Amino acid sequence: MFSERLNELMKKRNSLLCVGLDTDIERIPSFLLSEVDPLFLFNREIIEATSEFVSAYKLNMAFYESLGMPGWELLEKSMSIIPSDILIIADAKRGDIGNTSRKYADTFFKTYSFDAITVSPFMGFDSVEPFLEYKNKGVFILCLTSNSGSQDFQRLSVHGEKLYSKIARKVLEWNFSYGNCGLVIGGTQSKEIEEVRNVAQNLPFLVPGIGAQGGNLEQAVKYATDNNGLSALINAGRSILYAGSEMNFAEISRERAKQLRDQINMFVRIYKKPEMRGRDLN
Amino acid sequence: MFSERLNELMKKRNSLLCVGLDTDIERIPSFLLSEVDPLFLFNREIIEATSEFVSAYKLNMAFYESLGMPGWELLEKSMSIIPSDILIIADAKRGDIGNTSRKYADTFFKTYSFDAITVSPFMGFDSVEPFLEYKNKGVFILCLTSNSGSQDFQRLSVHGEKLYSKIARKVLEWNFSYGNCGLVIGGTQSKEIEEVRNVAQNLPFLVPGIGAQGGNLEQAVKYATDNNGLSALINAGRSILYAGSEMNFAEISRERAKQLRDQINMFVRIYKKPEMRGRDLN
Repeated sequence: MFSERLNELMKKRNSLLCVGLDTDIERIPSFLLSEVDPLFLFNREIIEATSEFVSAYKLNMAFYESLGMPGWELLEKSMSIIPSDILIIADAKRGDIGNTSRKYADTFFKTYSFDAITVSPFMGFDSVEPFLEYKNKGVFILCLTSNSGSQDFQRLSVHGEKLYSKIARKVLEWNFSYGNCGLVIGGTQSKEIEEVRNVAQNLPFLVPGIGAQGGNLEQAVKYATDNNGLSALINAGRSILYAGSEMNFAEISRERAKQLRDQINMFVRIYKKPEMRGRDLN
Repeated sequence: MFSERLNELMKKRNSLLCVGLDTDIERIPSFLLSEVDPLFLFNREIIEATSEFVSAYKLNMAFYESLGMPGWELLEKSMSIIPSDILIIADAKRGDIGNTSRKYADTFFKTYSFDAITVSPFMGFDSVEPFLEYKNKGVFILCLTSNSGSQDFQRLSVHGEKLYSKIARKVLEWNFSYGNCGLVIGGTQSKEIEEVRNVAQNLPFLVPGIGAQGGNLEQAVKYATDNNGLSALINAGRSILYAGSEMNFAEISRERAKQLRDQINMFVRIYKKPEMRGRDLN
């Protein structure tokens, strides 16, 4: 089961942290721009500096696709230097009719060897199934996102139940058959995170929206993790990547990642079960 | 306005047909496989054979992405040989938080020069806005799709109204500010196409699901087009692309495209206003 594998990984690495490699030429330290391959150089520095403190890296495809072919090269090279025991997530938010989703699944799980992906539930089961059929891969399905637009549809009331809650129940159902589902839950609304955790039982959550998007870390950790303080990857992107802009930027990112990992572990100790509290999570 | 530009184009080219270039190595005529660049050869033959009868080509990104870097080369080369007055649509179904959607918009409208794109509404307005900000490009937003999974969420009832209808109203609202919105409406359920057309006024529709997916062409044309028999691109992919498998495959695809274009025009004459009926649309 993907969820067990993820939890084992997080326990072993002592971290719920996922770093989002949203690498943007307009935001990397400007002194890098005179180098031959500044974006890869940036990714390499960031990965080397932060890998000790993370269980996963999340590569948002938009940042790579927008570069055209060099972006896919950057993607491949960056993936190749991530230590093999760290989970690599394609933040792709794909979804299409069955025969087309199959091509997307092949893209991310065969052409590129991602360990997990984010997909959109909007087109329903047959649009998600081709991803689920890769049984040893994880599929994080968008449930409730952290942006303002989540008001427009995700929070609509469907027979007295919010759409995002309905999605969580549906995904739980899919998970009974496939065992490799997860949910993307934005980290900005703690009441809703709690609500979805109650519906979704022990499904793994991927929680973006911490840091630059303003989500409250304490509340996110408290409500997103399961009773054992597991089953949630807490993602931070810009707040770690672009913490520094001078020669020592990687060092600053490293500090920021360590700090965040430690804060998460502290909140786990405070709010979750004795079995976790007893371990030295720092 | 995108809708006016599209309607002018369809009138000028005397066609509502869009051909979906869902190019698949497993489905192209096998004799091509011994060639150096079989996929591009296939696309070139199909484009040369069918361009006379279409107003648009739709390239489904999944089929190109799944090939890795060679797929993006294929995409570029194929786009470059499409006659410049034909609309090129990226069937990408993207959508992410604002700053990320901006990167996707750049990908398809700047890095690659598509004329229009399909996007997912699931994450709401700020996930769609960066695409809309390219004012001279068209943005077809998923509303009701033709696959079985459309039952799971799109058809849910929200305060007595189907989610897809709510999406159509929301998109109409966005269109008042931006003027370049359209909707993707699967061609398989005529009653629902009619319903969405009533809600969406004259928004351009992109209608897949005709042909291989079994949509009824007559009903789709009758209900998807506006009162003038315009504002709808009818897409066919596999049923045209893979109609033949021998040396003369392109000729067969050409025949199929012409036939479909003519059938669409015939239904427009039968069901729509005299101003269209009076013109010789074949």
